[in-house]
Amino acid sequence: MMMNSSRQNANSLAVQAMFAADPVLVGVRPAGDVVPGMHSQTILTSGPPLPWREYGPGQRRAILYGAVYEGLAADPERAAQLLDRGDITVGACHDHDCVGSVAGIYTASMPVFVVRNAAGSNTAYCNLYEGKSRFRLNYGSYDEGVRDGLRFLQDVVGPVIGAVVRASDGIALKPIIRRALNMGDELHSRNTAASLLFSRELVARLFDLGADADVSREQIIKAWEFLSENDYFFLRLSMAAAKATADAAAGIEGSSIITAMTLGSRNFAIRVSGLGEQWFTGPMPTVKAQLFDGYTEDDIEWIGGESMITETVGLGGFAQAAAFALQDYQGGSADAMVRENLAMYRITAAESPDYRIPYLGYRGTPTGIDLFSVLDTGVLPIIDGGLAGRDGGQIGAGLLVAPVECFAAAAEAFTARYADLDRPVTA
Amino acid sequence: MMMNSSRQNANSLAVQAMFAADPVLVGVRPAGDVVPGMHSQTILTSGPPLPWREYGPGQRRAILYGAVYEGLAADPERAAQLLDRGDITVGACHDHDCVGSVAGIYTASMPVFVVRNAAGSNTAYCNLYEGKSRFRLNYGSYDEGVRDGLRFLQDVVGPVIGAVVRASDGIALKPIIRRALNMGDELHSRNTAASLLFSRELVARLFDLGADADVSREQIIKAWEFLSENDYFFLRLSMAAAKATADAAAGIEGSSIITAMTLGSRNFAIRVSGLGEQWFTGPMPTVKAQLFDGYTEDDIEWIGGESMITETVGLGGFAQAAAFALQDYQGGSADAMVRENLAMYRITAAESPDYRIPYLGYRGTPTGIDLFSVLDTGVLPIIDGGLAGRDGGQIGAGLLVAPVECFAAAAEAFTARYADLDRPVTA
Repeated sequence: MMMNSSRQNANSLAVQAMFAADPVLVGVRPAGDVVPGMHSQTILTSGPPLPWREYGPGQRRAILYGAVYEGLAADPERAAQLLDRGDITVGACHDHDCVGSVAGIYTASMPVFVVRNAAGSNTAYCNLYEGKSRFRLNYGSYDEGVRDGLRFLQDVVGPVIGAVVRASDGIALKPIIRRALNMGDELHSRNTAASLLFSRELVARLFDLGADADVSREQIIKAWEFLSENDYFFLRLSMAAAKATADAAAGIEGSSIITAMTLGSRNFAIRVSGLGEQWFTGPMPTVKAQLFDGYTEDDIEWIGGESMITETVGLGGFAQAAAFALQDYQGGSADAMVRENLAMYRITAAESPDYRIPYLGYRGTPTGIDLFSVLDTGVLPIIDGGLAGRDGGQIGAGLLVAPVECFAAAAEAFTARYADLDRPVTA
Repeated sequence: MMMNSSRQNANSLAVQAMFAADPVLVGVRPAGDVVPGMHSQTILTSGPPLPWREYGPGQRRAILYGAVYEGLAADPERAAQLLDRGDITVGACHDHDCVGSVAGIYTASMPVFVVRNAAGSNTAYCNLYEGKSRFRLNYGSYDEGVRDGLRFLQDVVGPVIGAVVRASDGIALKPIIRRALNMGDELHSRNTAASLLFSRELVARLFDLGADADVSREQIIKAWEFLSENDYFFLRLSMAAAKATADAAAGIEGSSIITAMTLGSRNFAIRVSGLGEQWFTGPMPTVKAQLFDGYTEDDIEWIGGESMITETVGLGGFAQAAAFALQDYQGGSADAMVRENLAMYRITAAESPDYRIPYLGYRGTPTGIDLFSVLDTGVLPIIDGGLAGRDGGQIGAGLLVAPVECFAAAAEAFTARYADLDRPVTA
């Protein structure tokens, strides 16, 4: 009993750290310049760390394309040789304070958002949204169009937003997320309002930048055009903000709160606050998909995904009753969205004081997944997500359900690790 | 029976005209230059036409303040003399293709949005939102701050948006309204997303305007600041768009669809498509108010209001299930909002093919109030609205319920007018 109370106290500390987190965009910089442990020959990808040869075909292809994009190899075959030899190394995004969207490919020259938790000492990074073509490197596609799009981020979008951020004291992301939840976003599969709110923050400073030498008027106009057209632009800021928030709750002795969930091409995995950086793995999530015309569930290929960091901090599937417009994109019904959202209160430790759901009478979003609540209730985390296809590219979206096995594995480790405490599983 | 079918056909024509309407912002001009029948000594105000001496105290004060703002009189006393003598004349907004927000004061030098129905031949006008102070001329307040705010609209906001519109082919409002409904607006008491979407439409052209002689860089920066700070900015565009839409359905022989609802300081009134420009009056609406701290319902003063033109075309209270965030502003609960929204389907002739409510499975908003459906069901139109206080200024917001008497009066006139047709009341 006392020990349960000590786990509860630890969990309370963990969620309070999440609630106190204050993610602020403080820069846009090349990954190689700022991401810890990132070198010119490093490629980051989603999922728990895996030896290079073990990545599944879609994710492997995405890594090879990353090497080609970065100019580390002339073609995927040559890139494979260099990876086989260890001349190019693959890292797991989370090990470098990054989060990956789908395959989550980071190379050294790609611009990343630098998001600092102003209420703590941690910083998180996320690279930029490639635009609305369903063929994107993060979905495992690569051709001239994908390459040009990535170069455009590097040469235009990154520098322009970077210049705005330098000219300011940083852009606070929490107020944008909070408002976006009142405007139909859940900040994972829907970021329309947040993208608009973020863009608006830039405009006044864009008027001023014209004169300055850092970026040209032409760059500004083109960057604005890109921002105006891309309703998902904010997703990467939402992910970086969520990573900065979740990491604030990491490493709290005795806490059974989940601090990250990740998907690689081989497995799904979670991290637990009181268990450090260890990943606990399970099989692939089950999925309720709404696929683009012409695709079936057999076409889905798992190539990675860490955007579920948003669910980890009470957004995405945990705030879906804020985003009924998502039905159009990922199927389902408003009733089901409410029901699934409400279920998440059964497995979370607290309700956010900042992020609130108007439909639920402004109830705070369910925040801080407690692995023992998941096991006690049998309710599994629900994740909004995009889906990649075997032929590359996005083929749809849907609800993913995390596998119970990783929670069971984590509980075993937790019970062993805290064996000196009373058995913490019982309610 | 045949005649009922002819009323149904007429109503179908009326709602099809509403659905086909394509409101486009084509200019921002001084009211005196563009509003039909508006002269330098004219003041427009909300409500059905009324002899000057019959306006209630709050609305009378607002008219006097309008005269002072326009420089027609040095003070309210002198303005009253000129109005008594007929040297200044008062007109009803709707008689001049305008709609008034609350007291709805228009003077000749005020900028107005010019919104043309690109699918028809009608044009509607609405003046500009004064900003978020609760003391505004449209709420019957006047002092130096109110005056400076109105001058700012005239000197800065109007000219800047006007210059953008001139540099474009006009700004289509229907796509903005359609998207805003997916983003938590109902376009009457909540316009946050629409204001953002509209602002975004301006930005690319604002980058270009700097060089041009019409407006200065300083004007652009100040206008942008105003737009960024005012989530209600779009309301006046929503009202003008709704007026352009409702007027498209006016004057259809045999139609019992409501084409306008208005509130003056003496009564509430409606217009019916098949009954021309006649107003049918009833007593004040009943109200479920959420008042600012320190106020009670006894403090409410009716000083006019025509923003309910949005409800007339299936927005506002008729789309409230799209805007759960409104609970914060006007009280109620999500369940009540859904219930009230659903009730509106019982009194409307059709569901919008464009304006849809995500929570209701993207069902089209209930559009085209049929006066006989109101009488048959006893369900009265629900209106989202702001509330003015006896001491001037806004004191809260709430749901207004239209009075049944005006529908009964209109039904009587309709039955008399169409006596040669079969009795059209029965189902």
